[in-house]
Amino acid sequence: MHYKAGPHLEQIVFPEDLRNKFSHEDLPLVADELREYIVDVISEIGNSHFGASLGVVELTVALHYAFNTPYDQLVWDVGHQAYGHKILTGRREVFHTNRLLGGISGFPKRSESEYDTFGVGHSSTSISAALGMAAASKYKNEKNKHHIAVIGDGAMTAGLAFEGLNHAGSLQDTNLLVVLNDNCMSIDPNVGALKEYLTDITTSHTYNKVKDEVWKLLGKVSKFGPDAQSIVSKISGALKSTLLKQSNLFESLNFRYFGPVDGHDVVNLTKILEDLRDIPGPKILHCITVKGKGYKYSEEGNPTQWHAPGIFNKETGEIVKIVPKSPQPPKYQDVFGHTIVELAEKNDKIMGVTPAMPSGCSLNIMMKAMPDRAFDVGIAEQHAVTFSAGLATQGLIPFCNIYSSFMQRAYDQVLHDVALQNLNVVFCLDRGGLVGADGATHHGVYDLAYMRSIPNMIVSSPMNESELRNLMYTAQLSDKGPFSIRYPRGNGVMTEWKTPFKEIPVGSGRKVTDGADIAFLTIGPIGNYAQKALEQLKELGISAAHYDMRFVKPLDELLLHEVFGKFDKVITVEDGCLMGGMGSAILEFMADNRYKADIVRLGIPDKYIHHGTQEELYHVCGFDVGGMVETAKKVLNYQEKQNTIKKAAN
Amino acid sequence: MHYKAGPHLEQIVFPEDLRNKFSHEDLPLVADELREYIVDVISEIGNSHFGASLGVVELTVALHYAFNTPYDQLVWDVGHQAYGHKILTGRREVFHTNRLLGGISGFPKRSESEYDTFGVGHSSTSISAALGMAAASKYKNEKNKHHIAVIGDGAMTAGLAFEGLNHAGSLQDTNLLVVLNDNCMSIDPNVGALKEYLTDITTSHTYNKVKDEVWKLLGKVSKFGPDAQSIVSKISGALKSTLLKQSNLFESLNFRYFGPVDGHDVVNLTKILEDLRDIPGPKILHCITVKGKGYKYSEEGNPTQWHAPGIFNKETGEIVKIVPKSPQPPKYQDVFGHTIVELAEKNDKIMGVTPAMPSGCSLNIMMKAMPDRAFDVGIAEQHAVTFSAGLATQGLIPFCNIYSSFMQRAYDQVLHDVALQNLNVVFCLDRGGLVGADGATHHGVYDLAYMRSIPNMIVSSPMNESELRNLMYTAQLSDKGPFSIRYPRGNGVMTEWKTPFKEIPVGSGRKVTDGADIAFLTIGPIGNYAQKALEQLKELGISAAHYDMRFVKPLDELLLHEVFGKFDKVITVEDGCLMGGMGSAILEFMADNRYKADIVRLGIPDKYIHHGTQEELYHVCGFDVGGMVETAKKVLNYQEKQNTIKKAAN
Repeated sequence: MHYKAGPHLEQIVFPEDLRNKFSHEDLPLVADELREYIVDVISEIGNSHFGASLGVVELTVALHYAFNTPYDQLVWDVGHQAYGHKILTGRREVFHTNRLLGGISGFPKRSESEYDTFGVGHSSTSISAALGMAAASKYKNEKNKHHIAVIGDGAMTAGLAFEGLNHAGSLQDTNLLVVLNDNCMSIDPNVGALKEYLTDITTSHTYNKVKDEVWKLLGKVSKFGPDAQSIVSKISGALKSTLLKQSNLFESLNFRYFGPVDGHDVVNLTKILEDLRDIPGPKILHCITVKGKGYKYSEEGNPTQWHAPGIFNKETGEIVKIVPKSPQPPKYQDVFGHTIVELAEKNDKIMGVTPAMPSGCSLNIMMKAMPDRAFDVGIAEQHAVTFSAGLATQGLIPFCNIYSSFMQRAYDQVLHDVALQNLNVVFCLDRGGLVGADGATHHGVYDLAYMRSIPNMIVSSPMNESELRNLMYTAQLSDKGPFSIRYPRGNGVMTEWKTPFKEIPVGSGRKVTDGADIAFLTIGPIGNYAQKALEQLKELGISAAHYDMRFVKPLDELLLHEVFGKFDKVITVEDGCLMGGMGSAILEFMADNRYKADIVRLGIPDKYIHHGTQEELYHVCGFDVGGMVETAKKVLNYQEKQNTIKKAAN
Repeated sequence: MHYKAGPHLEQIVFPEDLRNKFSHEDLPLVADELREYIVDVISEIGNSHFGASLGVVELTVALHYAFNTPYDQLVWDVGHQAYGHKILTGRREVFHTNRLLGGISGFPKRSESEYDTFGVGHSSTSISAALGMAAASKYKNEKNKHHIAVIGDGAMTAGLAFEGLNHAGSLQDTNLLVVLNDNCMSIDPNVGALKEYLTDITTSHTYNKVKDEVWKLLGKVSKFGPDAQSIVSKISGALKSTLLKQSNLFESLNFRYFGPVDGHDVVNLTKILEDLRDIPGPKILHCITVKGKGYKYSEEGNPTQWHAPGIFNKETGEIVKIVPKSPQPPKYQDVFGHTIVELAEKNDKIMGVTPAMPSGCSLNIMMKAMPDRAFDVGIAEQHAVTFSAGLATQGLIPFCNIYSSFMQRAYDQVLHDVALQNLNVVFCLDRGGLVGADGATHHGVYDLAYMRSIPNMIVSSPMNESELRNLMYTAQLSDKGPFSIRYPRGNGVMTEWKTPFKEIPVGSGRKVTDGADIAFLTIGPIGNYAQKALEQLKELGISAAHYDMRFVKPLDELLLHEVFGKFDKVITVEDGCLMGGMGSAILEFMADNRYKADIVRLGIPDKYIHHGTQEELYHVCGFDVGGMVETAKKVLNYQEKQNTIKKAAN
């Protein structure tokens, strides 16, 4: 570990060191060294978030200085901005293992540290969680215990955050501080009315200033004599009783509002937080920060690019791009992004919807090409789905693109607003399956199970880019009802992927490879691994067939009759949870048709899988190429010796 | 059909009759007759919602008069207030079939009428749906098309509604009107900061009045001369630029706000709606209404009681209570309500949480007995779960009670905030299984499937009241992680239900009845039907065993080895979806252990089940007593003749 902390940071293992060893005046240097440390490590290890943590360096130092963590409960929303927090709370020495297999998580995690009060990854949970903690403290009569939720303005648009605010505002006797980290960004620039509202507060005369100014002016009016005084008194009364009370969105919800303040002035920030400690009830501190702050290139550059830049040269700001010698397959997200434009050019019913992931899912391509037909609705998965349902009632065909794990937020809307009404919404589930370094909170592994139990829902997943294009093409051909297409994070397998469109009959799988001894049934791109497994098995003299199911629902029953008519050893493979997933769907088919084959299901076992590369995690779960080969051998009672004999006989 | 419409109402089959045949002055009479008709029918058929529809009679008439429905798109939130709407839109003659098997739905339903623009049952979807419609209209360049969401103040607290407002506020070129029907009620009185805020607006000087008054007063000040005028101009400027712009929660979100207005003055309401038609962009009309309005007993009585009173004498307001001769088993919800208090008296870690269903789930018993330990958080399922997670991080054991179908809203919070962190939250899923008259939107039939695919989650369901008590007792005994207990709507089976507590080992099923020919594996109270089926089978000479699994996860593997060691014919029965449900869990066990029994799974097929009594719907789905008997006969190739011979031989 060659990373060197600065002279102040070096002295801090836990926040109490920060509090005991340093005065207010030292904090700017602590912040600088903390920022430098983050830049040092992240620029080298890559594979991490960056801009968000840089933007809250001062806030992190100020919070741990002003509050008595971990007794006081500090809850980070989303969590990828918590790198500074991790470094200050006993994890500086292991910070370079960030997001690696066996290393620390890129997000707060309760099992990792008592300072991580609430595990997180999805946005907008912090207010509810901190309020629960505050209510518990009140019930347990714990004195002087503070509960702080740090939430970005992007996360504030999600319904869950509003629900938390609404409840908190009615619990005036809990000790809750919401720190609104306002940088006008999610991963992409924020959208929505709330964002405009916050911009209004911060760019016009600020709210508190205006309030002061009006009082001052009214004071001047009073000098015109008793009549004027009486009128002024009436005006003040009216303003106080209603207008001022309601003059701020957050005060409408019974929060005391403070700010906006400069989130990079660490001394001032610390003093304000110290003052706020003594104010009871729910309160909100509005901090203005800059994503990527303090590192020249991220501060001045494109914040979306610096959200998670990978490895970069910290001196020059050059982001290292490994340029391959030969053309590489595209990312699945880009296949989606280009294909939807291609389809929309021909079908004027197609619309695009994303909840705050235009660059993540590549809908930004359509937003640029057809701005009136693609919507970024902010971090609001529920709304994204019901809004799409509304579009569909009018005969349009929305492609609603949501990461698989975020789609969990909209499960009820998929079921109740779209599928129950059999509306023609196409759900594109990006990041389906194990996603790698983001870990347990982000793996999109439940979707095949929860989607297939929803009536009317078509559940599909392409094995490659061409199939993805054809499924998208198929989904918009006629009124098919809800149609989900799931594909993974990362790159595909085809360099020539822009193949001509071809309809895929709904519920049709395909035989990829014929075989005699055993059959693999796969769904999605993991099928490409099965292809490699088949090759290795062939070397061993095992003849395996491979069927790409393409649809988990409806299942291709004709194909399955063929499979179970021919094979009594079957292996199913899916990059999804085993409980209720595709393998279970196959078992249901077998039971309903009284097939009795031996069947082994490969997929995600019934536990949370942590972070690592996708490849590593496939191995952990036993469905990488080696896992498939070993499983086949086991099912077939294959003996190495037996094979040798067999080979010799040939 | 003996219900008689009044002389005005009689002339209205569709809203165009209302618009063509009557003037503004006639509308109060139309409203009166509409109200009378609702009272006439609902008092006799019972089994329906009541107070909500009565409260919006004038609003319903005004909306259909002012707007050109169904060209204009009218979206009702929640939907149980849409009875007046149904009567005015071609369904008066069938209104008496409300919520009966084969009759009309108690909620708007697209397949029932083109006037039902968006099917609904769960709350807070209307703004998002109407915004989607409005965006579609804009894209299609449809002129003078209006989109109206009618939403209660209770529904406004749910995150989805906020997400919709936030997005709508940024689409200034869509034609959206949100009618806020403010009656301070969900089923129970509303809670939360928003409710207080709305009350502030309506009880103090109203917002617009104050605004006018301040301007008037400032005008007076101007008379003090040019100096005063200059100051006033500055004050006005400051107020306008910031305060007034932000002076209302909804205006903060870029909505134009109008109101509050009397929601029972149908003439005035109609005129206002006609005026609002010409104002572009997103706007909100705040109407004050009284739930149960216009019918003496519901208006003056307890609104929670009159939410859905059952059959009543319309003359006397007496609600018909069928008093049984002998003591009847309690409702499951009441077993929960009493038991949690009993447990909490002994275990001070236990807390109660409900999202707006205190009377529906009987947590009101605890709220009364232990007000500091039971929270009604408003219609906010997501927050209810994450708030519970926060409580659990502090060592408390929250019992979070949410109807099964509403828990769909919190699927991500259960998975990401509770189960991933293995927090000890007890989920009590009331209304699990088919709920009866509320129909497709309310059936709680997906929970066993979606809960069991979540790692760490214990998934249980008691067969009777005593088992429910024991599962609740078990769940709070030690740190068990997330523990779900699912029970149905309606009454139990035990008159002496207050049995002493007994721990049930997690993952242990029980053999209820021994047998030889075939085994039934059941989960939950449907096991009582299996008991009856066993009796009928015995009559036929069939010896069936019955196992109550109690836990869908973890499965009782010992017990299952017994079952599959002994039986090669097995029937699973669950009041839940077949796709991925308990039956599939059993199939997974069989595959993993290479059991090859013939297995038939009974449960909810892969389609949406509509309304009817629970009994009727069990029959529709084939898992009532008769269905179980027939299935067993079929599996056993049972022939009536064969049985006769067998009997003769004995």
